[in-house]
Amino acid sequence: MVHRAYNFYAGPATLPLPALEKAQEELLDYNGTGMSIMELSHRSKWFDEVMNGAQDLVRELLGLGKEYHVMFLQGGASQQFALVPMNINTHGKIPDILHTGTWTKKAITEANILGGCNIVASSEDEGFRYIPTDYRINPDASYFHCCSNNTINGTQIEDFPDTGDVPLVSDMSSDFMCRELDYSKFGIIFAGAQKNIGPAGTTIVVIRDDLVGLHGVDVPTMFRYLTHIEKRSMFNTPPSFAVYMCKLCLEHLRDMGGIPAIEKKNRDKAKLLYDLIDGSGGFYKGHARKDSRSLMNVTFNLRTKELEDKCAAEALALGLVGLKGHRSVGGMRASIYNAMPREGVEFLVEFLERFQKESE
Amino acid sequence: MVHRAYNFYAGPATLPLPALEKAQEELLDYNGTGMSIMELSHRSKWFDEVMNGAQDLVRELLGLGKEYHVMFLQGGASQQFALVPMNINTHGKIPDILHTGTWTKKAITEANILGGCNIVASSEDEGFRYIPTDYRINPDASYFHCCSNNTINGTQIEDFPDTGDVPLVSDMSSDFMCRELDYSKFGIIFAGAQKNIGPAGTTIVVIRDDLVGLHGVDVPTMFRYLTHIEKRSMFNTPPSFAVYMCKLCLEHLRDMGGIPAIEKKNRDKAKLLYDLIDGSGGFYKGHARKDSRSLMNVTFNLRTKELEDKCAAEALALGLVGLKGHRSVGGMRASIYNAMPREGVEFLVEFLERFQKESE
Repeated sequence: MVHRAYNFYAGPATLPLPALEKAQEELLDYNGTGMSIMELSHRSKWFDEVMNGAQDLVRELLGLGKEYHVMFLQGGASQQFALVPMNINTHGKIPDILHTGTWTKKAITEANILGGCNIVASSEDEGFRYIPTDYRINPDASYFHCCSNNTINGTQIEDFPDTGDVPLVSDMSSDFMCRELDYSKFGIIFAGAQKNIGPAGTTIVVIRDDLVGLHGVDVPTMFRYLTHIEKRSMFNTPPSFAVYMCKLCLEHLRDMGGIPAIEKKNRDKAKLLYDLIDGSGGFYKGHARKDSRSLMNVTFNLRTKELEDKCAAEALALGLVGLKGHRSVGGMRASIYNAMPREGVEFLVEFLERFQKESE
Repeated sequence: MVHRAYNFYAGPATLPLPALEKAQEELLDYNGTGMSIMELSHRSKWFDEVMNGAQDLVRELLGLGKEYHVMFLQGGASQQFALVPMNINTHGKIPDILHTGTWTKKAITEANILGGCNIVASSEDEGFRYIPTDYRINPDASYFHCCSNNTINGTQIEDFPDTGDVPLVSDMSSDFMCRELDYSKFGIIFAGAQKNIGPAGTTIVVIRDDLVGLHGVDVPTMFRYLTHIEKRSMFNTPPSFAVYMCKLCLEHLRDMGGIPAIEKKNRDKAKLLYDLIDGSGGFYKGHARKDSRSLMNVTFNLRTKELEDKCAAEALALGLVGLKGHRSVGGMRASIYNAMPREGVEFLVEFLERFQKESE
């Protein structure tokens, strides 16, 4: 029996046990080759199948057609904050950005280094506790950037704006594939794998064909999406083990029913926690505004920092790991990504109920 | 008994079996945490130890002091071809580049996109079969770039030039830590891990302190070395599993006696193969000029392409994998990196002797 903690880390985060077990089983001998998947040339037929299979699975699960390209890149969303403007910012146009927290702040910083941007709305006035909905998109914007889920604040975009002819770009690092959406609304979606899809070390970028090749001549080869699309993410050596792990996790998601099935589970898990918070008579106070609550990161506070620390420490002693909020905002945060089983959330809810009783 | 092929791939390449076994053993439960190393927050104390330990090991094994910073980045050497000029190309100065093959060609392309470069010498006239030694370094160059080992052609720099006040920059992707050198001669060393140090997905960059912070204001945050040095390679989520694997491989290298011990083994392995080639009466023809031969990648040809294909196919049937030369030059190539055991090379030599007898 494997010893498993309930891992509420915000990322890198818990992964599906069957995917980890499969990786462990074949770690020294992939598919009878006598080599680890880590030791296989990326030019071998074996790895080719892994890379193509992973790309096809992303398209299949999102319900996208061949007009979308899927890349497995490196550098995380932080690198994409630079790559998107480097690849799309043409003819002096600048992007519109919806500012909802730390991650869009980083996108703004990079856009400003690379030519500027326009902040269409911000929820900074209320500590990023909500998703602004009242804003106008500039029809001349190079693209519209938003962060679909704000890990740190525990907010999530429910309805994406109609951006008309302006390409809709979303950082989905922390809620990629957590729910059904019309993914064909998006021009670019990017997501660091390490929250919902796999381990750290690769970033999935999905891009519509008409947005490829708009970079300037001064953009280095590695930073052009076109480079990676033409070479199917094998212009240079890809992060092969990370892509392999993503493929195992994506297969697991497909086999359990895909995005519709995982959305149902995610809504059920989130409801357990939000009901506990809302029914605690104010002992637990939700951080995000109710209309902006995230399915992935449940943020809440207790009366004092001391009580929060005590709560996190007692939880940790029971094997409930990673419940401290992000160092920039404090409080508590339970990240309940796709791979978090319902039992983990039930166990957390039971603990929180007991902790409240013992503290009152 | 684990089924292990002898893996002569040029990278990703063979890894030390003890490192793979350790990773397999603890893949589901790292250090009693109840979590995989892949599932651990990069802000956890456990991963902090991995990252710091890996950085310290690189400095220790290279014999470098605290004036050198060690980074674990993403994007491979291909990304460094852009990052080095973005970080060092200041005040209109351009780099000198020693052109010795495909990888320096890529460095030249990126330097040209980013402001230009000066090719001090090239061995293109002889198909990159040798390392030029007769050239003059421009004292006003922003830096001098060379590739210490040319994987594709099987050449390696024996003596690095005295560059005076011009920073010496070397791409050591395919021979990092293969031999003793005065590493304090170098301003910047970078190496994709996937040949000599670990799996694909992380790139080790070693930089002397005086070269940090010379980037322009138009360089995105993720592309500034300063960003990653200030945050000890954790500005954003690092490729945690790849760093962990590197640490296991570096510990293995340290425990076996470090770089002096591995150099001895590497010279011995290379001699076995070069002696076979030189003693074959021309049946096997070495590709690289004798004065420029690589300890890591032994390149050679047979009379015809048909014979080469037959040789590679028969070898493969015996579990000798990855002996076909790079698609750009053809021929045969045996990559015998640090982790290739002597037995693998002995087995290959025996096979090649037998193949010659049977073919003549």
